[in-house]
Amino acid sequence: MEENRQDVNEFIIEGRNAVIEAFRSGRSIDRVYILDGCQDGPVSTIKREAKKQDTVIKYVTKERLDQMSETGRHQGVIASVAAYTYAEVEDMLALAEKRGEPPFLFLLDNIEDPHNLGAIIRTANLAGAHGVIIPKNRAVGLTATVARTSAGALNYTPVARVTNLSRTIRELKEQGIWFVCADMDGTPMYDLNLTGPMGLVIGNEGEGVSRLVKESCDMVASIPMKGDIDSLNASVAAGVLAYEIVRQRIGK
Amino acid sequence: MEENRQDVNEFIIEGRNAVIEAFRSGRSIDRVYILDGCQDGPVSTIKREAKKQDTVIKYVTKERLDQMSETGRHQGVIASVAAYTYAEVEDMLALAEKRGEPPFLFLLDNIEDPHNLGAIIRTANLAGAHGVIIPKNRAVGLTATVARTSAGALNYTPVARVTNLSRTIRELKEQGIWFVCADMDGTPMYDLNLTGPMGLVIGNEGEGVSRLVKESCDMVASIPMKGDIDSLNASVAAGVLAYEIVRQRIGK
Repeated sequence: MEENRQDVNEFIIEGRNAVIEAFRSGRSIDRVYILDGCQDGPVSTIKREAKKQDTVIKYVTKERLDQMSETGRHQGVIASVAAYTYAEVEDMLALAEKRGEPPFLFLLDNIEDPHNLGAIIRTANLAGAHGVIIPKNRAVGLTATVARTSAGALNYTPVARVTNLSRTIRELKEQGIWFVCADMDGTPMYDLNLTGPMGLVIGNEGEGVSRLVKESCDMVASIPMKGDIDSLNASVAAGVLAYEIVRQRIGK
Repeated sequence: MEENRQDVNEFIIEGRNAVIEAFRSGRSIDRVYILDGCQDGPVSTIKREAKKQDTVIKYVTKERLDQMSETGRHQGVIASVAAYTYAEVEDMLALAEKRGEPPFLFLLDNIEDPHNLGAIIRTANLAGAHGVIIPKNRAVGLTATVARTSAGALNYTPVARVTNLSRTIRELKEQGIWFVCADMDGTPMYDLNLTGPMGLVIGNEGEGVSRLVKESCDMVASIPMKGDIDSLNASVAAGVLAYEIVRQRIGK
């Protein structure tokens, strides 16, 4: 969590007016931290703007805000801003079409560790995916650590944030994309047909893929496990599955 | 590097006599930090013990030692101790034989990030490898962060430290093990025969596999790269290659 705090510090906006202005200028705000119990006019405006844009609000103590603050003048409000601009899901489909390839998307069901998110965006780029979709709530956003661990991939691979991952999956299914999620109790990945327009869903580090998201998927793939422990690191699992898709796509 | 410092603090031994005693009791010492310029009798003894056991010595400033110290009484010497006991390469071959499987080893050519080392040990466990070999010099050792990110795999998968990775590869080749390393200019991994007794060599995060180690390998494998950036995260690359070996081994 050290890492997280550091990120936030690198891209924060402090003070009521500055945060309101940031919302109104259309900047990608990952999260707003508001002093717990703070209720006045400007704070209500910030809450309203945050709701309008589906930005997560965290209510925190004065100590926490003081710790995050760089200027010491946060006035009870700090916003953390995405280091990169988010794309739209449509941009990814357009990219696939431009390249003349069937869409290949990564969907991350609440990845929390910025190192994992960065490594997965890096993998998405090299596996030839057209974009990475993350949920707005809970999951980590595009912080400085994510940018760094993506090794530059964030400059090339679009990342979109959506409010409800299951709904996005349902909408994309209507456009002919198939979805596969990773889970231990799935079919061995080698026995699934993973060619064609494909969305690869990767679950949270601790809890895996959530029930609703799993039920929205067409296929559940398992990675063979010969060891003593439960699961691969989330970014490693994403890499192994992504490359099984690559292998099937290139017909090896 | 924050992370590293934290690790060291969790498993350190401070003071001249305590460090000398730790060496003589046979504990696995990852590194010794000595005050730069310190030359007296006990310090010479520590240097001699460190050389005898191929332990890396780092000469540091008083400020650095003060920062690492928990007791404030380091007397110019701090040793960082492995959180786990190292195994021997022979133990791994014995494990393979016991399981009736051809040996499958991971060799890490100077992995520096403890998160990567932990994730790779986790992958080695789940891919059914019999052990992980790391070099003594430069690379990160079995710190608390490594143990944590291995998600318990360190309790099952033996890790050995060797002085010279190329020499270990040559010795193991004489026992019939083949070695494959990962490099961009290699043969596509799908076109190599990766069954049989196999050592998988993974390079350093920034520099890849070193020339000498690469020259010791029988095969150079490349992972198909369709993107804009250079390389996968080291632990993801290890996972993708390990699972290509798994796929070939189970005949899929």
